Amino acid sequence: MSNGTANGKSATSYLRPDVVAMKAYTPGEQVNECIKLNTNECAWGPSPKVLEALAGATGNSLRLYPSPLGDKLRQAAAEVYGVDAAQVLVGNGSDDCLTVIMRSFLQPGDKVACPWPTYSLYDTLASIQGVEIQHHDWLAAADPAVAAGGGGVAGWHLPVSALAASGARVVFVASPNNPSATLVPLHALETLAGMLPGVLVVDEAYIDYACDGDGMAASFIKRLAAFPNVLVLRTFSKSYAMAGARLGLMFADAELIGHMNKVKDSYNVNALTQLAGEAALRDRAHFEWLVKETLAQREVLAAAFTEFGWSWPPTDGNFMLVDVGSVALAGALYAGLKEAGILVRYWGSRPDLNSKLRITVGAKESNEKFIALTRKLLGELKK
Amino acid sequence: MSNGTANGKSATSYLRPDVVAMKAYTPGEQVNECIKLNTNECAWGPSPKVLEALAGATGNSLRLYPSPLGDKLRQAAAEVYGVDAAQVLVGNGSDDCLTVIMRSFLQPGDKVACPWPTYSLYDTLASIQGVEIQHHDWLAAADPAVAAGGGGVAGWHLPVSALAASGARVVFVASPNNPSATLVPLHALETLAGMLPGVLVVDEAYIDYACDGDGMAASFIKRLAAFPNVLVLRTFSKSYAMAGARLGLMFADAELIGHMNKVKDSYNVNALTQLAGEAALRDRAHFEWLVKETLAQREVLAAAFTEFGWSWPPTDGNFMLVDVGSVALAGALYAGLKEAGILVRYWGSRPDLNSKLRITVGAKESNEKFIALTRKLLGELKK
Repeated sequence: MSNGTANGKSATSYLRPDVVAMKAYTPGEQVNECIKLNTNECAWGPSPKVLEALAGATGNSLRLYPSPLGDKLRQAAAEVYGVDAAQVLVGNGSDDCLTVIMRSFLQPGDKVACPWPTYSLYDTLASIQGVEIQHHDWLAAADPAVAAGGGGVAGWHLPVSALAASGARVVFVASPNNPSATLVPLHALETLAGMLPGVLVVDEAYIDYACDGDGMAASFIKRLAAFPNVLVLRTFSKSYAMAGARLGLMFADAELIGHMNKVKDSYNVNALTQLAGEAALRDRAHFEWLVKETLAQREVLAAAFTEFGWSWPPTDGNFMLVDVGSVALAGALYAGLKEAGILVRYWGSRPDLNSKLRITVGAKESNEKFIALTRKLLGELKK
Repeated sequence: MSNGTANGKSATSYLRPDVVAMKAYTPGEQVNECIKLNTNECAWGPSPKVLEALAGATGNSLRLYPSPLGDKLRQAAAEVYGVDAAQVLVGNGSDDCLTVIMRSFLQPGDKVACPWPTYSLYDTLASIQGVEIQHHDWLAAADPAVAAGGGGVAGWHLPVSALAASGARVVFVASPNNPSATLVPLHALETLAGMLPGVLVVDEAYIDYACDGDGMAASFIKRLAAFPNVLVLRTFSKSYAMAGARLGLMFADAELIGHMNKVKDSYNVNALTQLAGEAALRDRAHFEWLVKETLAQREVLAAAFTEFGWSWPPTDGNFMLVDVGSVALAGALYAGLKEAGILVRYWGSRPDLNSKLRITVGAKESNEKFIALTRKLLGELKK
């Protein structure tokens, strides 16, 4: 719309040109009444204690501003994860924590980097921040800079040397990685952290599913004291079954967290989510049940995928990246499943991913329907 | 902490120097069990329909990601405010909307501007974005650029010419203004919008209390079609009594909103707040009751302030900025009230404000206690 009173300029002309040009981050499809195996949500609901805590919310918990730093929530997190409360920043989802990191560390002209492929939101956020992002391909074998220590997945080894040499002020590594579900060994992350001139963000969104459910064994949280340049992210959208509540946590050096608390919005986590998050953290039994159920259903899917002749990297997440053998088959399966009301994630325009599907571990009934339908589709498509 | 593995650098050394140096935004004090007349929250709770909606939240509303654009919520807002749903952006509080604006319009080297004094978060956000912010003092009389049209408050007239000449890409005007509670006439805002080379953000956090409760009469929302460079902000923290839920709305040209939706976090408003916000919007009777009660209690405070011999600019908000006559008296009243468990807002280190107190309209009983204690303190302090 053009208008004399506003200098005849279009509304869009007021925006930053790079914002006009930028592509939006594409969240996974959200379709009602579908079986959703496409966005890595938890297949079961959160702790009943969470719903109880919410039912206890009063007019006053809505009327008044929430605790700016999420005092009770970070105290609960400190107890569960064995850190000081001052080492915890509460975020409106881990997306918010990522934004705070971008704004805290990066100035015009700075660079960030990540292994590739990975969570594409890092690209979107770099673009919004106006900084360059470098992609370095995962390696077939362990990086020479990494001392032998076992672990790591063929084709998904951390490109430590390339990332360290990239000149990035911030390096993002998701472990387990999305979309591959592959875990990065702690000693590779430690090597990278020691070589980096900047900070390393270890995004542990899926780590509770790693090491057969002993996620803390693979977590960088317990190594933070030795690495002041490492920040660890956690989300409540996966293993705590609270994607709708928007809650993420960042763990780092207390002094860093103090400065980043200035950068986040003063009241970034609402009062209801603070209640829900504290209740979820304190119900360890439900949390462990959710992880255990997920791992059991992951086995069910794995058996079916083996039957189908599919391959996938060893998974440490609540999802698998299966190679179905051809681009045509991947596209046809995605479309056939969607038509029947089952969503999986497919990146048809990505040459590195277009013969693959990313499949979230669902509940028993969802998985059974998915497996039966896939078996049927494969039979038809192979005729 | 310094550590060989991370190049012996301190954690803080990795941050942007301006982030290390910056002062945090200081939210109003939040003390439990106090009478809170310091942060302009609503004195009464939100609509019972809001609590009902929350009680109906299920495990699934928590387990699944929320609607990225807040579809139902923006539809409800569109109906209430008479715009298209595509003209509405949902924010995690209006603070989040302000952050989205900063990131959408501003590049390194850009400037922003605002009249002064005003909401100090604009300064904080400019500092985080790394842009200069210019303050232009409110004027004693109407700006010569503004055609006569009535309205405006002596000492609090919009500095239209100075703001227009500032070279700012974004100008922030709170109307009613915080901390003065003074309304800026629509025709002054229209004049400014027409002169500006950039965009004008009209922050209408308190406008529902303006014009004796007919806030839409003073709102820029109905003028948006004629001014594609104007963005209007609304919050649910005041007249909807939901500061704890974190919800803000931005109204603007649909194309602008479309681009800004790329810049906000994909899932910035959680599912519970979306439910709560929709319920609050649809209960017009409770909303009108809250505004009416607030205006009635504002009269009670006004009568007491007259008795005390205090002066204040005409208020169009749910608060008043009273000049108590001296810096010493303001400081002593603030301290005496606080000791007795009543919080008001005081900026002791600000020469432009240190003889003043900002007092939120409370509920009947809170106001009575506040008035009685103040009367007693004034008697003692004047001895």
